Amino acid sequence: MKKSNSILSHLNNEGNPQMVDVSGKAVTSRTATAQAIVQFPSPVFKQLVKNNFLGSKGSIFHTAIIAGTMAAKRTADLIPLCHPLSLSQISIDIEKGTNMLLINATIQCDGKTGVEMEALTAASITALTVYDMCKALSHDIVITQTKLVEKKGGKSDFKR
Amino acid sequence: MKKSNSILSHLNNEGNPQMVDVSGKAVTSRTATAQAIVQFPSPVFKQLVKNNFLGSKGSIFHTAIIAGTMAAKRTADLIPLCHPLSLSQISIDIEKGTNMLLINATIQCDGKTGVEMEALTAASITALTVYDMCKALSHDIVITQTKLVEKKGGKSDFKR
Amino acid sequence: MKKSNSILSHLNNEGNPQMVDVSGKAVTSRTATAQAIVQFPSPVFKQLVKNNFLGSKGSIFHTAIIAGTMAAKRTADLIPLCHPLSLSQISIDIEKGTNMLLINATIQCDGKTGVEMEALTAASITALTVYDMCKALSHDIVITQTKLVEKKGGKSDFKR
Amino acid sequence: MKKSNSILSHLNNEGNPQMVDVSGKAVTSRTATAQAIVQFPSPVFKQLVKNNFLGSKGSIFHTAIIAGTMAAKRTADLIPLCHPLSLSQISIDIEKGTNMLLINATIQCDGKTGVEMEALTAASITALTVYDMCKALSHDIVITQTKLVEKKGGKSDFKR
Amino acid sequence: MKKSNSILSHLNNEGNPQMVDVSGKAVTSRTATAQAIVQFPSPVFKQLVKNNFLGSKGSIFHTAIIAGTMAAKRTADLIPLCHPLSLSQISIDIEKGTNMLLINATIQCDGKTGVEMEALTAASITALTVYDMCKALSHDIVITQTKLVEKKGGKSDFKR
Amino acid sequence: MKKSNSILSHLNNEGNPQMVDVSGKAVTSRTATAQAIVQFPSPVFKQLVKNNFLGSKGSIFHTAIIAGTMAAKRTADLIPLCHPLSLSQISIDIEKGTNMLLINATIQCDGKTGVEMEALTAASITALTVYDMCKALSHDIVITQTKLVEKKGGKSDFKR
Repeated sequence: MKKSNSILSHLNNEGNPQMVDVSGKAVTSRTATAQAIVQFPSPVFKQLVKNNFLGSKGSIFHTAIIAGTMAAKRTADLIPLCHPLSLSQISIDIEKGTNMLLINATIQCDGKTGVEMEALTAASITALTVYDMCKALSHDIVITQTKLVEKKGGKSDFKR
Repeated sequence: MKKSNSILSHLNNEGNPQMVDVSGKAVTSRTATAQAIVQFPSPVFKQLVKNNFLGSKGSIFHTAIIAGTMAAKRTADLIPLCHPLSLSQISIDIEKGTNMLLINATIQCDGKTGVEMEALTAASITALTVYDMCKALSHDIVITQTKLVEKKGGKSDFKR
Repeated sequence: MKKSNSILSHLNNEGNPQMVDVSGKAVTSRTATAQAIVQFPSPVFKQLVKNNFLGSKGSIFHTAIIAGTMAAKRTADLIPLCHPLSLSQISIDIEKGTNMLLINATIQCDGKTGVEMEALTAASITALTVYDMCKALSHDIVITQTKLVEKKGGKSDFKR
Repeated sequence: MKKSNSILSHLNNEGNPQMVDVSGKAVTSRTATAQAIVQFPSPVFKQLVKNNFLGSKGSIFHTAIIAGTMAAKRTADLIPLCHPLSLSQISIDIEKGTNMLLINATIQCDGKTGVEMEALTAASITALTVYDMCKALSHDIVITQTKLVEKKGGKSDFKR
Repeated sequence: MKKSNSILSHLNNEGNPQMVDVSGKAVTSRTATAQAIVQFPSPVFKQLVKNNFLGSKGSIFHTAIIAGTMAAKRTADLIPLCHPLSLSQISIDIEKGTNMLLINATIQCDGKTGVEMEALTAASITALTVYDMCKALSHDIVITQTKLVEKKGGKSDFKR
Repeated sequence: MKKSNSILSHLNNEGNPQMVDVSGKAVTSRTATAQAIVQFPSPVFKQLVKNNFLGSKGSIFHTAIIAGTMAAKRTADLIPLCHPLSLSQISIDIEKGTNMLLINATIQCDGKTGVEMEALTAASITALTVYDMCKALSHDIVITQTKLVEKKGGKSDFKR
């Protein structure tokens, strides 16, 4: 099945979605860290700190970290053009800042492509779960930053 | 099987996660809109506009909207304490701003609980897919705002 | 958050995917039947009949029917713009024809939209599983017809 | 498309799997409670109690309860002939016994069929996750009882 | 746990389903292409061509290709006895024929078993999504051919 | 992103869940067998034997084995801190005992971590499906034992 006929090229020119071909790439060790920041109204954050982040639905940190961990493993099922990858580590930390929680998700795998989207997905779903566990207190909680922090092991490394 | 309250309370005091009981609530019509903003470095945004948001992997908008639509339907599978809901509408729009894309996801259902997390999940996964489709151009693309915009039909309405 | 109509229309003009809004529709009883036909090379079909459709991987019919049943329940997870529905019946039959198997999948639900895609998905995955269970015998097995046979309970009924 | 009854009966006589038709049943409020017991070697249980059930992978109770909660929502995706149901409550408790943990999962929904399998699936996956969190200490941890404890709201109630 | 006792053999004789053991096989580069053909009533096809395959739910081609791409990654979750595989490429093209669309799905991976079912699943779900996007125009759209076109890299190659 | 700062350690001291890092481990061939026992009231078991385990929903053994096989592939999606693994064999047998069925699930893979949880998940879901297929006859069916039987290929082998 040759793919370079005029009709196919035409369709490609129309911008049909296509997963990048990584079949010729070498398997290397890949790491990526992403961060999401959840910003709270000050009185809400004070109340959460006072309760040690124990909301009416249970432990906010534990629930959020597990949600993020499970979402990382489902990244290729959520982001249409991501490759399925065998993740060897998922580590999600939540740090307290000033009226905010800083979520850092670090993912590792040996693969032909990197784990950048896995780290971003893990951080995003962790942040959304924090929101879900706290939304009875306020709907003015905002995820203010979701971004790649660092990635290593691919064609080019990145460090913010 | 009576749930022994002393133990249960004890466990709750330890902060065990628990889905909120909505079995006694009435089915009402619910709507929620959430927004995620994707911020681009200026030259990257210019290039994307010039290409009509057609990246090397295909149409950025279409792919992202479909990803967000499918993610909305999987919200209860991603956010641990969300209830499964029969969504009757999912509508995701992408507006162009200054060096940014504004993603608005509106969800509707008739249910015993609202679709706030569905709207936020749809907006987040749409934004992550935009990132995935554009990351070959820059890793300095940031999702700067993910927030509830409006919700209607529950105990209390919300409008930002 | 008003959705700016001019931009939205513009995007719609660009053909952005959008789930049909069924929130205003009434819940009615819906049924749909779809058929997929699997065509075999004659000697392969004879061999399968002789073995009572027991392949090297096990009972072809049982495995295929279970696969189709489970796929029906996942239709909204596979077909991007399908609504999630609470199916009340899934019934899949396999009839023997001349060098072919006729797969009929009938689905029922009470819902705001029909189960046509659920019936077609069930028939398709049943047929693909038949192929998978038989492909050690021949790769020249073809699914020759996948089509809606009947649907009832929506705006307009259909019967082939 | 008439389903030819003789063939269908014939297939049924061969034992083809088929989801029970609940389309004619009334929606009622349903509850079920299931229990799974995890039995530990005595020194392992002592060590876990001493550490307040905090294993090397984190909080055993929280992780297990979240896993069970998420599994309850996926019951129809795991048990082939289960109907998809809109669960309105999932409540999982873990009680300490003598060298054992007693996991009780209670599920509620308004539906045409009961939530017995949902309760059993929740209890089972909670128990398996407890095992996973503890298996570094011993592989001689056994899930000794997984059973229905009570169900209400269907044709006939059950109470052990 | 020895598996060759009389009872197990007996069960195998009854045709219990069993995944083929590929643990001893070498990892090789595998490719497969499958095709599904969607046949339209002539006036419907004319209308679709006139609208550049832009239906009321959005871009038919983009939505269908993304659905097929995501389904390819879920093949082992849909076809009971398929092995999970780390796909390195998924490429789906849609060609216009006479009153028909020809869908070609090509999949690649490095694995112990081939990607034939992944290609067929991708082509099938792409075709079903085309149907879903067009069914408002006609229910007489039929998927007339779903078949393997070519496979390479296993024990024996195949080319239609 | 260094992970050993005081806040993160503090959180770890609080017992946040974390997937074990296997990135430095070698890929070896792994096998695990788990067993689940389903105990029936004597008259129910007699009736099932008389009917050759053909219940009103169809073949109990086939349906249960397929459910267990599919669940094995979804283990990392169900057990929060399990690693995704490329399983190369899944083999589930059901033996008849005295008023009981003995389910043995054997899983193989080449991976950095073992398949113990996959075997236990397969055995559990097979047992739950047996229960589902038989529960119309009695709710006093109990899964009395779910345990690891043997594992090989990791740091230390285990055999009961």
